[in-house]
Amino acid sequence: MFRPEIKVLDCSIRDGGLINQWKFSDDFVRATYQAVSAAGVDYMEIGYKASKAQFDATKFGKWRFCEDADVRKVIDGIDHGAKLSCMVDIGRVEEKDLVAQKDSPFSMIRVACYIKEIDKAIALAEMIMNKGYETTINVMAVSTNLEREIDEALTDLSKSAVPAVYVVDSYGAMYSEDVTFLVKKYVAALPGKTIGIHTHNNRQLAFANTIQAIIDGANLLDASVYGIGRGPGNCCLELLMTFLQNPKFQLRPILQLIQEHYLPLREQIEWGYIIPYMITGMLNEHPRMAIAWRDSAQRNDFVKFYDTLTTPEPENQ
Amino acid sequence: MFRPEIKVLDCSIRDGGLINQWKFSDDFVRATYQAVSAAGVDYMEIGYKASKAQFDATKFGKWRFCEDADVRKVIDGIDHGAKLSCMVDIGRVEEKDLVAQKDSPFSMIRVACYIKEIDKAIALAEMIMNKGYETTINVMAVSTNLEREIDEALTDLSKSAVPAVYVVDSYGAMYSEDVTFLVKKYVAALPGKTIGIHTHNNRQLAFANTIQAIIDGANLLDASVYGIGRGPGNCCLELLMTFLQNPKFQLRPILQLIQEHYLPLREQIEWGYIIPYMITGMLNEHPRMAIAWRDSAQRNDFVKFYDTLTTPEPENQ
Repeated sequence: MFRPEIKVLDCSIRDGGLINQWKFSDDFVRATYQAVSAAGVDYMEIGYKASKAQFDATKFGKWRFCEDADVRKVIDGIDHGAKLSCMVDIGRVEEKDLVAQKDSPFSMIRVACYIKEIDKAIALAEMIMNKGYETTINVMAVSTNLEREIDEALTDLSKSAVPAVYVVDSYGAMYSEDVTFLVKKYVAALPGKTIGIHTHNNRQLAFANTIQAIIDGANLLDASVYGIGRGPGNCCLELLMTFLQNPKFQLRPILQLIQEHYLPLREQIEWGYIIPYMITGMLNEHPRMAIAWRDSAQRNDFVKFYDTLTTPEPENQ
Repeated sequence: MFRPEIKVLDCSIRDGGLINQWKFSDDFVRATYQAVSAAGVDYMEIGYKASKAQFDATKFGKWRFCEDADVRKVIDGIDHGAKLSCMVDIGRVEEKDLVAQKDSPFSMIRVACYIKEIDKAIALAEMIMNKGYETTINVMAVSTNLEREIDEALTDLSKSAVPAVYVVDSYGAMYSEDVTFLVKKYVAALPGKTIGIHTHNNRQLAFANTIQAIIDGANLLDASVYGIGRGPGNCCLELLMTFLQNPKFQLRPILQLIQEHYLPLREQIEWGYIIPYMITGMLNEHPRMAIAWRDSAQRNDFVKFYDTLTTPEPENQ
């Protein structure tokens, strides 16, 4: 698919950090930035921006906070690199934490929110835009929302200045028909805005669902190297590179990055096709139960996990 | 999706045997048969039937030959089990090797062929039918055929008595649009016949492509436990169980089988998402180069593999 409007955002460090509390070495982050830039990827999301007042900085790596000095150090000397992005959660960043874009290494700051926070998200995104940044709103977990709620959020978004809105399959629960339903709905409700897609690979559908979103009109695509991300991870950037036809995209630097950095990391921390996450995806549930299960002694007792999540609770009709 | 015509065929032992020369223990095969039967799967393909005159029997496990006595031993005492299937290749089985179906543990014998052998395949399938078996023809590697060749083969198949024909993505090269194109073509050209789908997971599209085939009219679905199969393997049976809505299909027995038998096996032999197979899939090539690469000392040098397969040969325009 070659559509000049299509842009790719690598979220390896930001989403992968959910596995290791963002404790990536500077070398690892720099190698990722170098390869992603050489591959023609448009944006790299290097972590979350958060106030150190809200988190115990001894428990997290530096990409949980994305302080400008740390970011500048890992990109120093890499010319014509991908634009940098970071993500913020509602209520976890304060206006004073954000300098004007002209003084920042970041081009884009993305806002993640649940649908009930949409108006707070719009206010935050507009504050970000006023500081000169590009922005998007990523509405999480819409597979658990009623259509009425989604339509209401889209009405609010359509009246805002926010230029880009993501369909996010937080739980890896969607089929391509669901992706089509949502992307077409977002496209219709948000004329003039860019629609993005962010998928999870619980059921090995992340790449297929990303392709479907492209067909249906999404032009901002999230992916991560070798699929790194919590649990099953995301759409694999290398797969997306094989699909997109724009000659600016290159597979080879990503292959090199995988063999030199991501294969060794995969020996230390796990992500990919893992049955408990397949089960939470199938049930359209947050992966938190699967995360806890994989940290326990019964990590490979898939039947017990399945029974735990599917046995009806009689009092809960 | 609940369509009563849909039938599922488990090909774990037959396709998985391509990794380990069919050297599965009787216990492993019996556990697979038990679980697959309990899950409501319609057919289990337990191996290839081949003449021992043509293969060195010391180099292969018994599921390369599927002698009736060996088969009877592993299914003994399992009531209401899945129907048994085996596969034959053109020229590798002789009429004298096949007893009448009423004297055989097999209900179905499937014929795999390349498109140029279609008339030999039809003759073999009709011989199989005359012995009382169900049969299918699985036309391999159609992603490498011209549409003219496919149409010609479909014309021959339409005139035959063969009741079922498979769309086979041998190289894991198809997108869902390709699946739609082929399944719709087969459906239109073969009125009254069942269309099957057999996918490979080189690019993490096996499950998505199987779903697409169902939507387009395929009613005979191949899958394997935990995706076992050469290289990237096949559509995961457990994923298919989560998609199909017919209450006869059960996920739980497959989960138990995975944790007790397939996870330990996966520690000994490899299959799944492996970059060199992703590259052969993207290039629409037979996986033989990837197999050799993974057997070599440079197994994780993905860049060199990519360069080897993509560097143009100037004399070969």
